[in-house]
Amino acid sequence: MGGDACIGVDLGGSYLKAALVDPSGKVLEFRKTALQIRRGAPFAIQTLVAECRTLSESAARLGFRLRAAGLGIAGKIDSASGSVIFSPNLPQLDGHAVAAPVEAALGVPVVTGNDADAFGIGEGWAGAGKGIENWVGATLGTGTGGCLMLGGRLWRGDGLGFSGEIGHMIVQPGGSSCACGMRGCLETFASESALVRGAREIVAEGKTQTALAGLFEAKTPNARSIFECASKGDPAARGLFDRMGWALGLALANLFTALGIRHAILGGGVSGAWDLFIGPLRETLSENMSMLPAAQAVVLKSALGESAAPVGAARMAFLWAGEAVRR
Amino acid sequence: MGGDACIGVDLGGSYLKAALVDPSGKVLEFRKTALQIRRGAPFAIQTLVAECRTLSESAARLGFRLRAAGLGIAGKIDSASGSVIFSPNLPQLDGHAVAAPVEAALGVPVVTGNDADAFGIGEGWAGAGKGIENWVGATLGTGTGGCLMLGGRLWRGDGLGFSGEIGHMIVQPGGSSCACGMRGCLETFASESALVRGAREIVAEGKTQTALAGLFEAKTPNARSIFECASKGDPAARGLFDRMGWALGLALANLFTALGIRHAILGGGVSGAWDLFIGPLRETLSENMSMLPAAQAVVLKSALGESAAPVGAARMAFLWAGEAVRR
Repeated sequence: MGGDACIGVDLGGSYLKAALVDPSGKVLEFRKTALQIRRGAPFAIQTLVAECRTLSESAARLGFRLRAAGLGIAGKIDSASGSVIFSPNLPQLDGHAVAAPVEAALGVPVVTGNDADAFGIGEGWAGAGKGIENWVGATLGTGTGGCLMLGGRLWRGDGLGFSGEIGHMIVQPGGSSCACGMRGCLETFASESALVRGAREIVAEGKTQTALAGLFEAKTPNARSIFECASKGDPAARGLFDRMGWALGLALANLFTALGIRHAILGGGVSGAWDLFIGPLRETLSENMSMLPAAQAVVLKSALGESAAPVGAARMAFLWAGEAVRR
Repeated sequence: MGGDACIGVDLGGSYLKAALVDPSGKVLEFRKTALQIRRGAPFAIQTLVAECRTLSESAARLGFRLRAAGLGIAGKIDSASGSVIFSPNLPQLDGHAVAAPVEAALGVPVVTGNDADAFGIGEGWAGAGKGIENWVGATLGTGTGGCLMLGGRLWRGDGLGFSGEIGHMIVQPGGSSCACGMRGCLETFASESALVRGAREIVAEGKTQTALAGLFEAKTPNARSIFECASKGDPAARGLFDRMGWALGLALANLFTALGIRHAILGGGVSGAWDLFIGPLRETLSENMSMLPAAQAVVLKSALGESAAPVGAARMAFLWAGEAVRR
């Protein structure tokens, strides 16, 4: 036992996931809690600080020395100041400093970045991206995050605070409204928000007999209940996953064509519905690429599951702290 | 006078452009000839060899030592064998070796690549891309070529023979047929082929009074005659450039969002219609990016014009030949 450890946090649209991670990428402790962002930024930041403090205590108890913490946050992030610039799915955090309160509570350096970028770093370090030079990452959660791993490293673009935001690529011009303010983004097809909105629209239209209607009787459905409905064979519910696959296939086809690459890795909670959308995804992908033979395209499922982004955020922290990291 | 020189060739869908270039990027001689690809691959390759031979003789006459030649060809290229894998707009060349006959004729090494990649290398070396770290290039010609310049260098992706093929990103799912075999590609909006097909459809519908109809009386119109028609104010002709701007704006918005970058450079013959499409392009770009403030997006016109790709192909040749190149 003993040695160095870092905390990695994934601050998504619905949940806060946090892990205590050792220099080899091993998760020493994992925590997941509802973020309750509707209670406002101060409450969410309080939750964040409390979760980090708990992991810091765990590190001490386990005999590890906490070196740094990394925060992966859904949105456009100003890493220099550790604050949120623009978050479609956590709008309450816009303009708020998130690194400073964590730094004050833990007494170690805190680095901030995008949650899907953390996913990419995590999967590339210790997951499905190991050994793949160039790939597109997508996280299917409350919203749709994305990252580009190019030349074995996270691609940061011009350093504008965003990169790999594939969830906000337009796949259907003039389509449904997105949380980001635009229309027809990938996120309006390939996220929990998209599933819930789609289910609501189907029920409101009332044209089809669908088990989705029952989901609204108790409370608002979520990705899981819509998934279960589809798994039992409900055609309307299945249709929502079909169009998720279609939109992902189209976006990946465009990215493969533009980047001249052929690998993608999908994670996030909604990727658990893999069997329902991977067929339409692969079909659409193969129908929309003229440059790459379909058989050469590789779409993989996250290997680290819900710890991918926390592990990646921890790696950001190790690198930030100048620690040697074992591959 | 004197010193080293390389030949650079741009083999596009309609024209062959070739230049004799010195190590500083200066064009010593420029040639442009119709490719007449419908007469078949052997005829086109014969034209290519003849043009290169003429420039080789010019080099000797001017007292330059020819070191190498570079060929930029519209399509997916196997650089290792110097042959064409798949060219939507020069299908007659598919499977043909193009480097070998030039090499035999000139007696110097010949390097092959994509024509739009050559455009990017040219503009980055001696044109509008000088000093810009990350940018998207698009060439609007018979088809729509593209390249990505990342970290100041041409991005080659996984080395699959294509990269930056933005002309074959889908901007309108289920849209018009593209030369590549798919539907709704950017090329079906932002190329000479798109203008001609669009004009034909408008005239065939016969719903609107349009000067475009007159263009078909003599022979098939081209980008220039449609441009002139639009410049005189014909609304149907203007509409074709509006939708060109729309499609380019959408594709660039998606690329800026995905790559986290903010610069693009447009070239190719059809970019001469700049004033007709740049307005709709900028409007669409600003309406479809939630991550980047519209004012930060920069779309520039090629500085080298029709010599951009030949100059870039010549630079490929200099680098291939291991020659020192002055920036």
